Amino acid sequence: MGGGANATCVFCQIVRGELAAHVVLDEPHVVAFLDRSPIFHGHCLVVPRLHIRTLPEVPRDLLEPLFSAAQRIATAVESGLGAEGTFVAMNNKISQSVPHLHVHVVPRRKKDGLRGFFWPRVKYASDEEMAAVATQIRNALP
Amino acid sequence: MGGGANATCVFCQIVRGELAAHVVLDEPHVVAFLDRSPIFHGHCLVVPRLHIRTLPEVPRDLLEPLFSAAQRIATAVESGLGAEGTFVAMNNKISQSVPHLHVHVVPRRKKDGLRGFFWPRVKYASDEEMAAVATQIRNALP
Repeated sequence: MGGGANATCVFCQIVRGELAAHVVLDEPHVVAFLDRSPIFHGHCLVVPRLHIRTLPEVPRDLLEPLFSAAQRIATAVESGLGAEGTFVAMNNKISQSVPHLHVHVVPRRKKDGLRGFFWPRVKYASDEEMAAVATQIRNALP
Repeated sequence: MGGGANATCVFCQIVRGELAAHVVLDEPHVVAFLDRSPIFHGHCLVVPRLHIRTLPEVPRDLLEPLFSAAQRIATAVESGLGAEGTFVAMNNKISQSVPHLHVHVVPRRKKDGLRGFFWPRVKYASDEEMAAVATQIRNALP
């Protein structure tokens, strides 16, 4: 994972200019372009130029350029498209259609119909069960 | 928005230790704890200590500490809970239940049932329509 370009990756091809895309931001470390199958019009994908697969694999010094670009895109889709907020998300491995990290930035509006789809919730049986899960996570922190 | 603590904000109360939570990470700029209504068990919220409302409002020098913490939590929920990937997301203003930025980190597994809920998609009528949307976003970049 991580590292240089990948010959067959469609996002690497967009970054290199070999595959057409509606690019909205083009910076030394980051490129952003419209998703062709948007949740809503104006849905952008913010990608590192490097072929990095997932968020945990992003080198530390790339975090600020990547998320600074995501901030600017979030501001621009809101003000440029008259949206009222944004949904910013990454799928790491599961539900990740292209194995090159992409930060989805989606314009949101009140009553846009997305909420119902979005956040199915479960419960913990007890506070003890919840404490045990927290311990498992703490013990696994890198 | 942004800046100091907020007396009535539940996430500020957790950050200050005034409200109980299952804390999994406690660092100088960032705290992470279990969501009480998780999408799946182990669903964590990563929050800046400062009362910042949305991603675009995060000061530039806080991006690296915030997303570095999100990386570590993503790694830990995956390895600690035997997950196969993660969903990492922020709702900015719309669908944002607590007006203090929180990065959701949700463990994912194959066939966990989430995909169908998640990504309703629309279309662009034409490439010209798509180009016009891209121009609106580019023109609004800060």
